[in-house]
Amino acid sequence: MEREKFEYFERLFHPESIAIIGASEGSFFYLSAPGVTGYKGKVYAVNPNRDSILNFKCYKSILDINDDIDFASVTLPAKYTPDVMRECVEKGVKTVHFFTSGFSETGTEEGRKLEQELLKISSKGSTRILGPNCMGVYCPESGLSFMPGFPKKPGPVAFIAQSGALTEQVVYSGRLRGVGFSKVVSYGNAIDLDNPEFIEYLAEDPKTKIISTYIEGTKNGRKFYETLKEAVKKKPVIVWKGGQTERGAVAVSSHTGSLAGSGNIWKAALNQIGAVNIRDLEDLVDTFLVFLQNPPPRGRRGLIVSFSGGESVTETDKAVEMGLEIPLLSKETKEKIDEMVPAAGISTRNPLDIPSAFFRFANIAEVVKVAASEDNIDFVIFEMLDRYRSVGKHFRGFQWYVDLRKSIRDAANYIKNELGKPFVIAILPAFSEHEATYLRKFYTTRGISVVPTMTRAAKAIKRMIEYHEFLDKQKP
Amino acid sequence: MEREKFEYFERLFHPESIAIIGASEGSFFYLSAPGVTGYKGKVYAVNPNRDSILNFKCYKSILDINDDIDFASVTLPAKYTPDVMRECVEKGVKTVHFFTSGFSETGTEEGRKLEQELLKISSKGSTRILGPNCMGVYCPESGLSFMPGFPKKPGPVAFIAQSGALTEQVVYSGRLRGVGFSKVVSYGNAIDLDNPEFIEYLAEDPKTKIISTYIEGTKNGRKFYETLKEAVKKKPVIVWKGGQTERGAVAVSSHTGSLAGSGNIWKAALNQIGAVNIRDLEDLVDTFLVFLQNPPPRGRRGLIVSFSGGESVTETDKAVEMGLEIPLLSKETKEKIDEMVPAAGISTRNPLDIPSAFFRFANIAEVVKVAASEDNIDFVIFEMLDRYRSVGKHFRGFQWYVDLRKSIRDAANYIKNELGKPFVIAILPAFSEHEATYLRKFYTTRGISVVPTMTRAAKAIKRMIEYHEFLDKQKP
Repeated sequence: MEREKFEYFERLFHPESIAIIGASEGSFFYLSAPGVTGYKGKVYAVNPNRDSILNFKCYKSILDINDDIDFASVTLPAKYTPDVMRECVEKGVKTVHFFTSGFSETGTEEGRKLEQELLKISSKGSTRILGPNCMGVYCPESGLSFMPGFPKKPGPVAFIAQSGALTEQVVYSGRLRGVGFSKVVSYGNAIDLDNPEFIEYLAEDPKTKIISTYIEGTKNGRKFYETLKEAVKKKPVIVWKGGQTERGAVAVSSHTGSLAGSGNIWKAALNQIGAVNIRDLEDLVDTFLVFLQNPPPRGRRGLIVSFSGGESVTETDKAVEMGLEIPLLSKETKEKIDEMVPAAGISTRNPLDIPSAFFRFANIAEVVKVAASEDNIDFVIFEMLDRYRSVGKHFRGFQWYVDLRKSIRDAANYIKNELGKPFVIAILPAFSEHEATYLRKFYTTRGISVVPTMTRAAKAIKRMIEYHEFLDKQKP
Repeated sequence: MEREKFEYFERLFHPESIAIIGASEGSFFYLSAPGVTGYKGKVYAVNPNRDSILNFKCYKSILDINDDIDFASVTLPAKYTPDVMRECVEKGVKTVHFFTSGFSETGTEEGRKLEQELLKISSKGSTRILGPNCMGVYCPESGLSFMPGFPKKPGPVAFIAQSGALTEQVVYSGRLRGVGFSKVVSYGNAIDLDNPEFIEYLAEDPKTKIISTYIEGTKNGRKFYETLKEAVKKKPVIVWKGGQTERGAVAVSSHTGSLAGSGNIWKAALNQIGAVNIRDLEDLVDTFLVFLQNPPPRGRRGLIVSFSGGESVTETDKAVEMGLEIPLLSKETKEKIDEMVPAAGISTRNPLDIPSAFFRFANIAEVVKVAASEDNIDFVIFEMLDRYRSVGKHFRGFQWYVDLRKSIRDAANYIKNELGKPFVIAILPAFSEHEATYLRKFYTTRGISVVPTMTRAAKAIKRMIEYHEFLDKQKP
C-alpha cells in the first residue's frame, strides 16, 4: 500500500477532529460522546436548529467550523445527504461517514441514484465516503467508537463488515470471552471505502495480528480475492461469508443490496489462498482465541482428555470426522500413566478418560503432561467440568480445587511453551454457569484458550492446522 | 411388556428397602444417603468391619438383615463380588447393583470370567444384576439417587446409558437448562439388565414422556432395534450413538468393552424407525426442551427473527442447508408489518431483521405475531439479545425492557397455543452472561424453549419435524 494511502487510513482510525452533522443527544450516544468512549481529539456539533447539545456549541454548517475536520459523521435523513456531501468536499473533510440509511439497500431506484449522486460530488474533491447505512469506526486506541459500551482497551484483532448490528455482536462477544480489537469497521453499502482497501491497510497495520471480515457480496470480486491472498501471507485472515445458499442470497439483497455468490465456489476459493473460512459468531470468537493464544500446531494428531467415557468416545468420533487424528498412546506412555493413576475404571490410551473420582490417585495435570509429551501428539483438548469447585467444597476440601485449577494452568503453560503444542480447554456450563464463567476468565486472562465444547475446540484447532499447512506449502 | 416384568421395573425404580454392601461414608455420599436425596424407604448398611456408619447399624452380611431387600448396591472390589452375589441370591434380593469396576471393560480375560461367574450365580435365583461398572439408578419420585446434587423434583424425561459420568453430565445440564427427569440409569457393562428392557419399560411408563439413551454397542442389536421401533410408536425416542467412526469404536472398547457399529448404518437404521439421532450433550438438552415445550410443527417452513442483518443471512443459509425452508412473507403481511414499523433499515420479508434501534417504532412482539400468522409459516426462531436490559437501563428506560420481555412471552404463548406453531428463543451469552441466564430462566420456567443459538434452534426443530413426518407416514 502506498505511503500516502496508508497514512490516510491511519488518520481515518485516529482522527484529530470529528464533526457530528445532524447532532442530537441520540447521535452523541452512538458517536463518540467525549468522555464516554475516551476520544481525546476535538469534537464539533453541526445542527442548524440548535444552539448547543450537551455543552457543545452547534454550528449551522460544517463550513462554519474554523478548523480542519478529519472525520464527519452524518445522521441526517437520506434526502439531506447530497447537500452535506457538497459542504464536506468544499471543507476538505478527509472522511464522511453516513450513518444514514435509505439508499440502495432499500432496493429502490431512488436509493441507488442518491448513492451515485454522493459519489459524483465526492469525485470533485479528495473526501472519501464511509457507508452509507453503517455504524462506522471503532478504534479503542484513538477512542473513536460507535457504542459507549465498547471496551476502551485495544487488542490485536481487526473485524470489518457491512453489517452494523453484527459488528456490535462481534465486539461484545469478544469482550465477554477475552478478545480485544485493534480496528472495527461497519462499512454498510460501501459506495467508496470498501472491504479490499481496509484489508490492504490492516495487513500492514502493526497493531493488527488477525484480520477478520464478514462479507455478503462485493462489487469487485477479483480485487477482493487478490487482496485477501496478499493479506494471508502477512497474517491470518478469517472470512465469514453470508449468503452461501440461494435463499440466503435473497436475504442478503434485502440487507445490503449486494450480490452474494455460491457457497461452494467461495469455500474452494478461500481454501486456495489459505483464508480461514468460518460460519458463525461462536466460530469466529473461538478462532480468534485459539489463533491468538497458541503456538502453531505441527500436525493433526490430538490428545483428548475427558472426564466422561461417553463424551470421550463421541468427541473422538467427531474429531476423526473433521479430519483430525486421535492416535493411541505408546505402550511406554500408557505404562507411565498407569503407574501414576493405579486404578481400574479409567482409560489411558487416548482419549484419556479419567472420571473425577480418580483424581485422588494422581495429579491429573502431571498425567496430561506425560501424555502430551509423546512425539505423536500435536495438540491437546482438555475438558474441564464446572462442578469441581462444588466437589472440592463438599467432598475433597476447597484446597483440592484450588490446586487442581492451578496445576491445569501450569500444565497448559508447559505444553504450550515448553512442548510448543496448542492446549485448549473446553468448559460447558452444565452444573454452574457462575463457575463456568469464573473458570473461563481464570484461564483466558492467563493466556489459555477456553471454548464451551470439545467439538468447538477441535474445530478451531483444525482451522489453525489448515492455516499452517497452507503456509508450509508456500515455502520455497 | 408382561405385567410381572413391568412390576419388577416399577419396584426397581421405587424400592421399599435398599442395602449398601461395602458401606462407607463415601458410598453413602453417592448412594442415596437418606435425607440427602429424599429416599424414604428403609436403608441398611452392610460392612463386616464396622459397627455403624452415620448412625446406621452395620450388618456383617446381607443375610443378617431381618427384612426383604429390593435393591442392593455393592461398592466392594471386584474379587469380592461373587460371594456377595451368592448371598444376594440366597436372600432373594430383587436387584443387585454393582458400582464396582474391574470387569470386562478392562479388556482382561479375568474381567470377562468374573462377569460370567456373576451371571451363573444369578441364574440360580431370581435376582437381577445392574452393572457392573455403573452408577445405578436416579429416580427423583422415589428419592433413589447416586448424586446428592441431583434434583429432587421429577420431570418427564428418561435417560439411560452405559456411561456414569455422562449420565451425571446429562442430569446436571438438564437441571441447569430446565429439564427434569423421570428415570435415569447408568447400566455399565449390562451383563443382565440391558438397554432394550429399560426402553421397553419406559415406553409403558406413564411418568416418562421422552425416552433418551446414549449407546455405544449392544449385545443384541436386533432386539435393541425392535424395542426402539416399538417404543417410537408410543413416545419420542432420542438416541445418542457413540463410536460411529472406527477410531471412536476403539475408544468405546476401552470404555465399556462393547462392540460399536458403523456410523452410517446406525444413522440409516435410526431414521427408518423414526428415532431421533443426536450427537452431543448440547444437542440432547436442546432436543428435550424443544420437544417438551412445543406443539408439533406442521411443516418445514420457518420464520427467523433476528436483530442483526448479518446473522439473519447466515442463519438462513444454515437453515436451508439443514433442509428447512425460510419462505418470503406474503405481500399483504409485509405491508402490514411495514405499517407497524415505518422505518428504513429493516427487512420485513423473512428473516425479519429488525435492529433494536427500531424497537421504538413498534411493539416487536406484535410484528412477530403478524408474521407468524401466515399460513406458510410452520415455526418461529426468535433471536433475543442479552443487552436489552442494559439498553433499557441506560437509554430507553427500564420499563421498556420489562415490557419487551413480557410482550415476547405473550407472543410466544399466542403463537404456540393459538396458532399451534413451535416458538424457540435463541439467547447467546454475548453481552452479559448474567442477563443471558436470567432471560433463559424467565422463558423456560414459563414453558418457552431457550437454546443458545439460532442454528441450534433450527437443528432441534428440524428433529421434531422429522419425528412428526415419520409419525404421519405411519398413519393408515
